[in-house]
Amino acid sequence: MRTLYGYFRSSAAYRVRIALNLKQLECEHKAVNLIPGVSEQKSDAYRAINPQGRVPYFIDGDVKLSQSPAILEYLDEVYPDVPLLPEGAANRAYVRQLANIIACDIHPLNNLAVLGKLKGEFGADDALVKKWYGDWITEGFTALEKIVSGSAHTGEFCFGDTPGLADLYLVPQMYNARRFNVDTGPFPTLERIDASCNTLEPFIKALPENQPDAPKA
Amino acid sequence: MRTLYGYFRSSAAYRVRIALNLKQLECEHKAVNLIPGVSEQKSDAYRAINPQGRVPYFIDGDVKLSQSPAILEYLDEVYPDVPLLPEGAANRAYVRQLANIIACDIHPLNNLAVLGKLKGEFGADDALVKKWYGDWITEGFTALEKIVSGSAHTGEFCFGDTPGLADLYLVPQMYNARRFNVDTGPFPTLERIDASCNTLEPFIKALPENQPDAPKA
Repeated sequence: MRTLYGYFRSSAAYRVRIALNLKQLECEHKAVNLIPGVSEQKSDAYRAINPQGRVPYFIDGDVKLSQSPAILEYLDEVYPDVPLLPEGAANRAYVRQLANIIACDIHPLNNLAVLGKLKGEFGADDALVKKWYGDWITEGFTALEKIVSGSAHTGEFCFGDTPGLADLYLVPQMYNARRFNVDTGPFPTLERIDASCNTLEPFIKALPENQPDAPKA
Repeated sequence: MRTLYGYFRSSAAYRVRIALNLKQLECEHKAVNLIPGVSEQKSDAYRAINPQGRVPYFIDGDVKLSQSPAILEYLDEVYPDVPLLPEGAANRAYVRQLANIIACDIHPLNNLAVLGKLKGEFGADDALVKKWYGDWITEGFTALEKIVSGSAHTGEFCFGDTPGLADLYLVPQMYNARRFNVDTGPFPTLERIDASCNTLEPFIKALPENQPDAPKA
């Protein structure tokens, strides 16, 4: 049996949820409450599961993994029926490049631990933290929009007309951009692809607000 | 012909240099001076090559790639003779997990653009920036040491007795840790693996100080 430790708002867990849904893989979801003050991820009980004290953490029989990029590559290798990566090394490299811009150049700078440190140790107020958050999204999305809008690979989705790896990085990051009121108007291609994804059941089912641990509206 | 745009101190470029050396692939190296004030990566000339204005950027015939994780996966798929990843999906996932802890949880927080923003917009002094730098290394290395020291996969290197993907993330990050006087004593397994790597020609040749754009001592 598969288990995913996540948090409704964790965009790294959100990526993995989309992948599991696209591949129609059953999985038990266990919520780890990351909200500052609760910080269940730092508990001894959770650190006994994942010593790094982060989500997502994925268990598939004997395989136990942290780090969403590693989890996603694993899922694509072991459950290839609905592939996340295209055929051909150059195509795969192109898609991974798009994913990495989000995974390495945007998301790590926007996670809760980072924002907490800026507020605490750097004494930053909410406005400055919000600017930091938006600046990294804007810089990364500017590069991404330029690449995707100019690429012959782009179709309804980041690579052709089937949703894949780059899309499941894009959608959670766009979700965060909207949540923090970052202007996504300068990124029309990314907006269009995000909208396409969000009409699909695997993406809708993975939305933060559709998780059991999301606060009821 | 292959071309790598890099910078002697960029640890993402350093990773790719090690991979090229391990695989004995000839490559032209072009230096992009990232030093604040020069910032050649932001020039129109360089942005015409890589619109994201970052290094590394790798060209292999028609294939043009930013993002070191994508470049490394590409190299391993196209030039598999000296593999960076082991056999078996679970083993590959394990190695990618180690690499991702550095690629996503440490390195993005320590790059020059981030440090510049902390000094500029957040008014942080050198001591606070140095603490930030060290804190992310210490947190990530603590997780990595716990995993690697407890894993049956660990040999002379992160995975068995052949250097591979996780090692070429580890070595540049250890190099940076030393440069910023971060105490690596609590990470004896990582120190031991790093020392093993640094006896090997492909790693020595890739050292920042051995690059043509490094200032002469």
